[in-house]
Amino acid sequence: MRATVDFFLFDWLAAERLVSRARYADHSRSTFSEVLDTCERVARDKVAPYNREVDTHEPQLVDGRVVLPQSSVDAAMAYVRTGMLAAAQDYADGGMQLPCVVEMAANAFYAKAGIGVGGGMMLTSANANLLRVHGSDAQRRTFANPQFAGRWFGTMCLSEPQAGSSLSDIMTRAEPDGGDYESDALGPRYRIHGHKMWISNGDHEVTENIVHLVLAKIPGSDGRLPPGASGISLFIVPKHLVAANGQLSGARNDVVVAGLNHKLGYRGVPNTVLNFGEGRYPVAGRAGALGYRVGAAGDGLRCMFHMMNEARIAVGLGAAMIGYAGFEASLAYARERRQGRPAGPGGKDPTQPSVRIIEHADVRRMLLAQKAYVEGGLALALYCARLVDEQRSAERPAAEKAALLLELLTPIAKSWPSEWCLEANSLAIQVLGGYGYTRDFPVEQLWRDNRLNMIHEGTHGIQAIDLLGRKVTMRDGAGLALLAARIEATASAAAATSFQREGAALRAALGRLVAATREAWATKVPEEALANATPYLQAFGHVVIAWIWLDVALATLSAEKAVPAAADFLQGKRQAMRYFFEFELGKIDPWLAVVASRNPVCREMREEWFQT
Amino acid sequence: MRATVDFFLFDWLAAERLVSRARYADHSRSTFSEVLDTCERVARDKVAPYNREVDTHEPQLVDGRVVLPQSSVDAAMAYVRTGMLAAAQDYADGGMQLPCVVEMAANAFYAKAGIGVGGGMMLTSANANLLRVHGSDAQRRTFANPQFAGRWFGTMCLSEPQAGSSLSDIMTRAEPDGGDYESDALGPRYRIHGHKMWISNGDHEVTENIVHLVLAKIPGSDGRLPPGASGISLFIVPKHLVAANGQLSGARNDVVVAGLNHKLGYRGVPNTVLNFGEGRYPVAGRAGALGYRVGAAGDGLRCMFHMMNEARIAVGLGAAMIGYAGFEASLAYARERRQGRPAGPGGKDPTQPSVRIIEHADVRRMLLAQKAYVEGGLALALYCARLVDEQRSAERPAAEKAALLLELLTPIAKSWPSEWCLEANSLAIQVLGGYGYTRDFPVEQLWRDNRLNMIHEGTHGIQAIDLLGRKVTMRDGAGLALLAARIEATASAAAATSFQREGAALRAALGRLVAATREAWATKVPEEALANATPYLQAFGHVVIAWIWLDVALATLSAEKAVPAAADFLQGKRQAMRYFFEFELGKIDPWLAVVASRNPVCREMREEWFQT
Repeated sequence: MRATVDFFLFDWLAAERLVSRARYADHSRSTFSEVLDTCERVARDKVAPYNREVDTHEPQLVDGRVVLPQSSVDAAMAYVRTGMLAAAQDYADGGMQLPCVVEMAANAFYAKAGIGVGGGMMLTSANANLLRVHGSDAQRRTFANPQFAGRWFGTMCLSEPQAGSSLSDIMTRAEPDGGDYESDALGPRYRIHGHKMWISNGDHEVTENIVHLVLAKIPGSDGRLPPGASGISLFIVPKHLVAANGQLSGARNDVVVAGLNHKLGYRGVPNTVLNFGEGRYPVAGRAGALGYRVGAAGDGLRCMFHMMNEARIAVGLGAAMIGYAGFEASLAYARERRQGRPAGPGGKDPTQPSVRIIEHADVRRMLLAQKAYVEGGLALALYCARLVDEQRSAERPAAEKAALLLELLTPIAKSWPSEWCLEANSLAIQVLGGYGYTRDFPVEQLWRDNRLNMIHEGTHGIQAIDLLGRKVTMRDGAGLALLAARIEATASAAAATSFQREGAALRAALGRLVAATREAWATKVPEEALANATPYLQAFGHVVIAWIWLDVALATLSAEKAVPAAADFLQGKRQAMRYFFEFELGKIDPWLAVVASRNPVCREMREEWFQT
Repeated sequence: MRATVDFFLFDWLAAERLVSRARYADHSRSTFSEVLDTCERVARDKVAPYNREVDTHEPQLVDGRVVLPQSSVDAAMAYVRTGMLAAAQDYADGGMQLPCVVEMAANAFYAKAGIGVGGGMMLTSANANLLRVHGSDAQRRTFANPQFAGRWFGTMCLSEPQAGSSLSDIMTRAEPDGGDYESDALGPRYRIHGHKMWISNGDHEVTENIVHLVLAKIPGSDGRLPPGASGISLFIVPKHLVAANGQLSGARNDVVVAGLNHKLGYRGVPNTVLNFGEGRYPVAGRAGALGYRVGAAGDGLRCMFHMMNEARIAVGLGAAMIGYAGFEASLAYARERRQGRPAGPGGKDPTQPSVRIIEHADVRRMLLAQKAYVEGGLALALYCARLVDEQRSAERPAAEKAALLLELLTPIAKSWPSEWCLEANSLAIQVLGGYGYTRDFPVEQLWRDNRLNMIHEGTHGIQAIDLLGRKVTMRDGAGLALLAARIEATASAAAATSFQREGAALRAALGRLVAATREAWATKVPEEALANATPYLQAFGHVVIAWIWLDVALATLSAEKAVPAAADFLQGKRQAMRYFFEFELGKIDPWLAVVASRNPVCREMREEWFQT
């Protein structure tokens, strides 16, 4: 995968041009490469060998404590030692001031080696990052810095048993802790009571403390929780209490793990139910977990979602990497395994030796589809990460455009790899046949691991409503218009090359997508427009990936002139692009047909008709 | 599901008309219903409650013996007591002389309750059935009858570690056992040496004996095995030796279980590696498992594949039933779980209570898709089973037509539910969200169980080559012409109803399928035609299911006149049909586009281009 990452980063996205900007001025292609070298090596040597063990020995709840296999702990600590938790932070804070695109590329190696490490660590850096932006100085110093250093890990506590996709229904309460609650050095102090569900890394003993970021509602003067999302605030709730000087006080906070969720996959990350404030560890003699408010009251969702774009790109990247691991495993198998013979004009000749299965066209189809999905997903994630850098470090109009395009693409960056790289994992199983269905090969685990990605960090359905209900209509469609302009530019560039036909096909697909968007909203009735939001999301994703692949293919032309020895490698990218255009892009038509016609079949389906 | 089964059997397929034929003359709708009642009840009470335990406590190899959880044994015995192993056999042989379509419908309840029982038992009845047709009188009496009675169970030993899809490469040897080998009362006696892989139910202690049906090659005079499939013969190899009078001799045959395959799912059926003739249990003082040849030497594959149509329909039915179990589970969840609110013209009102998720259009989409897939798969399996009955009991021209259509449809009956009811299982997980990803709900297991079906009994790729390479071209395309005539008949009937539009869409789809078939073979080069056989299989399957659904929908019209109270139930069938036509049928175009153009992208992909 390294050659592909390098090609995407340097030949396609021109990441080294970022060093012309002040923040990255100390960097060069060689410092970027050193980070990639380190992460590739540590992931291969310290994480990948234990990925099966982490699945087989899933986290256990023993006497109220979550116990992980030692290999999980070792892998996490190997990651911490690479300094990647603070990769993007200032030198002054112990960071590397790496661009997001390089950070994501480096993290990709971990996600491919074992999603437990990649996925788990992302939570800690996102938690600390949120505090860096929205926390007070004291909160940053006390709660963010130990996370950047890997001494403490973090969580994001959003969902509750009754409130998953619908955060406005959370029931966790935060009540001011005493009359002096506003004068605590660590921030306005509250007592938290409630139950949080699906909390990854919610408990463990890998680090000496855990920093929970908790969404909760502050009751009004009538004691009732405000309805809706605008009543949600954000709180820091440490597992072990922390003194004003940042030292552990030695006392537990009133947070306990109430249970572990036993998952289909993704078992390297313990997933917990947490109870806050049930009185198991009273603080100052009474029940209620201590929490320090971050930002203003009622501003919780805004603070939390500030980090959501990056978190969602990281989920998409993780999905692409689980897919990549399956692609590599099935490619290696197909190169070795002998079975069957080609059918010649006279049928098959059983006296001839059998061939390696990579020689069968249908196996090549399954490998090529995987390649198109997983490398397409990787390319999209890196493109989006590059937009993050642009948003952060470019001049104003360019930065604003990048931010706009990123907003639009985020639901695709999250959902498309979650769906299609799962399909890639299924194809990897199929290439291995019966062997793929056994636990003697990694592909079945990868398929199980990847199934989570369409669910967490906003389900497929939520992403679809975000895209069609908000992103394509925001600012009078400015985001969609910007994307259309970028796609047009790629199609135009293709017209002057051997990819003229693909450029025309992409332009036509864009036209159908834009028309369907307009038709979906023609009646201005959200129920009608959004009933088929998921097929819209799927079609949008396929158009975006077709564009990404064509843009990548254009980059191969100049790269090949520069390095003729890379011809086979680059030809593979072009063939994956062709596969996508000829086998995949046509799928958008049935999806867009139901969108454009505001097809009522699902909307009108009645519960009583579901009788079986 | 019972109402659906009854509707398909009696209203759509007119199964009770079969009682006009001599073989079924003692039956009536009520005797058929009694069988369904019994199987529905036993499956619900004796099998379903243990389906998770069978997954959690997978078979273990202890001191060379395969040990199953007691609940597996109990479930199998509950099945045996219903007499279903001999359901289709003559009264004289202790059977019920049931039509295949009723037998399959009854078995569907077991497959839905726990694939371990349904899938495992099917092997025993198929084994015994094969012996009934191809065995000698003594072989039938000695080896088939104890299986029909459930005293012994059976296996099918085809694959070897190096030969899965490519049976012509098997290396198991069968050598005549002494000069008098042809005079054994149980059949020509051989010594078997070799390794068999992926053998379901290959060892256990549920029954006092196991009857292995083993494919092996008889060496030529030069001691070498003949190349190709024509050199394959079929042998009965009992685990425990049997005397000429059918009694157990008390001695073991030289067959041992060498290992268990640890599977992703489908764990109710132990899957083994068997070693034949390695000398662990010498027979008459020397190594070599005793085997009795069935049929003529070299006729092994023909005997084995005689039963393959029914086995493949049963695999498809099993896939549909695993899908059905997920559909029911997610439907029940969606009817209970509250989350979110509808988006009205003024957005969402958080002061209103949340709604049950079945009220969200996207959830209804996921439920309706599942319904279209799993009931479509069930309908296809029953249609094919009805063809088996027609082939067996109708007058000659009708019987021959049924046989021809069945040959053509078998790869679809096997592959289509394997692919799309797996997708249904994924949608069931998605409906449950995070809960669906845990082992606290059944849907994750169902998804794992169903993943096997695209692999065993001929992979998807093998089915595709069978369809495009053999079935649509056989007898100058007579099978395809017959199917086209049936589809035309349904489309014509629809023209006189409110389904005129669907009839026209079906006719158009058929036209594109037939044209693509012709184009695929236009150059008469198998490599070019078959490179895209899998997309062809997918398109063919979607056209067939669209036809099946439209035919089912036509049957709802008359049924509703007869029983107005069933209106909601019948409307649900029509809505699933509409879903299939409006959301699914359009998918055939991109699949057929690559077929018709003999798209070379996969064929021309080179191994060296796969560099990552």
